Amino acid sequence: MTFRLHGYWRSSSTWRVRIGLHWKGIPFEHRPVNLLAGEQRREEHLARSPMGHVPLLEVEEGGRTLHLAQSMAILEWLEERVPSPPLLPADPDGRARVRRLAEHVNSSIQPFQNAVTLAWIRERLPGQEREWAAHWIARGLAALEAEASRGVGRFSHGDAVTLADLYLVPQLHGGRRFGVDLSRFPRLLAIEAACRELPAFRLSEPEAQPDAPPPGSR
Amino acid sequence: MTFRLHGYWRSSSTWRVRIGLHWKGIPFEHRPVNLLAGEQRREEHLARSPMGHVPLLEVEEGGRTLHLAQSMAILEWLEERVPSPPLLPADPDGRARVRRLAEHVNSSIQPFQNAVTLAWIRERLPGQEREWAAHWIARGLAALEAEASRGVGRFSHGDAVTLADLYLVPQLHGGRRFGVDLSRFPRLLAIEAACRELPAFRLSEPEAQPDAPPPGSR
Repeated sequence: MTFRLHGYWRSSSTWRVRIGLHWKGIPFEHRPVNLLAGEQRREEHLARSPMGHVPLLEVEEGGRTLHLAQSMAILEWLEERVPSPPLLPADPDGRARVRRLAEHVNSSIQPFQNAVTLAWIRERLPGQEREWAAHWIARGLAALEAEASRGVGRFSHGDAVTLADLYLVPQLHGGRRFGVDLSRFPRLLAIEAACRELPAFRLSEPEAQPDAPPPGSR
Repeated sequence: MTFRLHGYWRSSSTWRVRIGLHWKGIPFEHRPVNLLAGEQRREEHLARSPMGHVPLLEVEEGGRTLHLAQSMAILEWLEERVPSPPLLPADPDGRARVRRLAEHVNSSIQPFQNAVTLAWIRERLPGQEREWAAHWIARGLAALEAEASRGVGRFSHGDAVTLADLYLVPQLHGGRRFGVDLSRFPRLLAIEAACRELPAFRLSEPEAQPDAPPPGSR
């Protein structure tokens, strides 16, 4: 199998999939889609992903090409096809907890900070887009802190990295970007610190990506 | 195992889980949480679900109680514990497609029409909440129509009901509620019509729930 990841350096959904690929030791080619330049609306990208979303994972296997979209669907597929090292616990109840934490970010926080949503808010409520994003992120992280605090261990679910961590780390970065006071979330910050010691997380950081602009121009 | 579903008659996320339970023939008790009356912020509900979300599935088994939240996490757990009749195809690529279609609704459409989001918009942009919801639903369904049209069969993925259908049907209902012209989505409407012939879907409709107000007062 060969893998090409169509994505954008600062997209948090792309970031999750990068961590998953690095975690499982899967080599992949970066195919940058510049969201600021509108490349997600190009015909060749829409042919792969009608919604014009990133990430889009292209998998070549046995002469055919598979296009995977939506971070959860991509990561569940990776988990099924490349089960080791795992990103989900072995027991169904544990998997339900991990998926719950991940979905909390995926469907209850991140949609409010993505580029198209912010563009709508900016147009109707000029100057309020940061407040909008910060509101939903702060609200969502407060609930996530409460849920994560019911668990023990270095990571979101015990002492092993799981999907929940792949969603948490990019979301905390989003919180910083929009000025959310993260000091209220000590459990989440401790998990983030543990994750950032791991190569799979460090290699996946937005600033380390080939399409990230040089530090002075971000 | 005994099941109690804490939810709200008109919540589309609760509706998805209702279909899943009925589809698998799992008897369950309804525990209405009146979102309009703010019951999701009661202490007893927050103890089960710190974000104050519905649905919340409470499972009693062997003397212990499990609380499941987030529709995708609940439905994946049901699929693992009660695999027959299935809600996911047998092959990983098919599962990835079904999860992609479901996640498209779950994370890219529905978050914009939920009650707390609409309340924020109503407060800042009085009179624009319907336009807001209709905008995201129409945009999302157009992409879903394109993605679903790449498949064949009576349902979203072939001739068997899958998770994708459990997400689609409540989302189309949301489209009608906010005045979206659904005639532009013939493939989605055909799938919906096929679903609505099935008892699991009919039993799950909001208006058939014990906490639905009488027809004249909705």
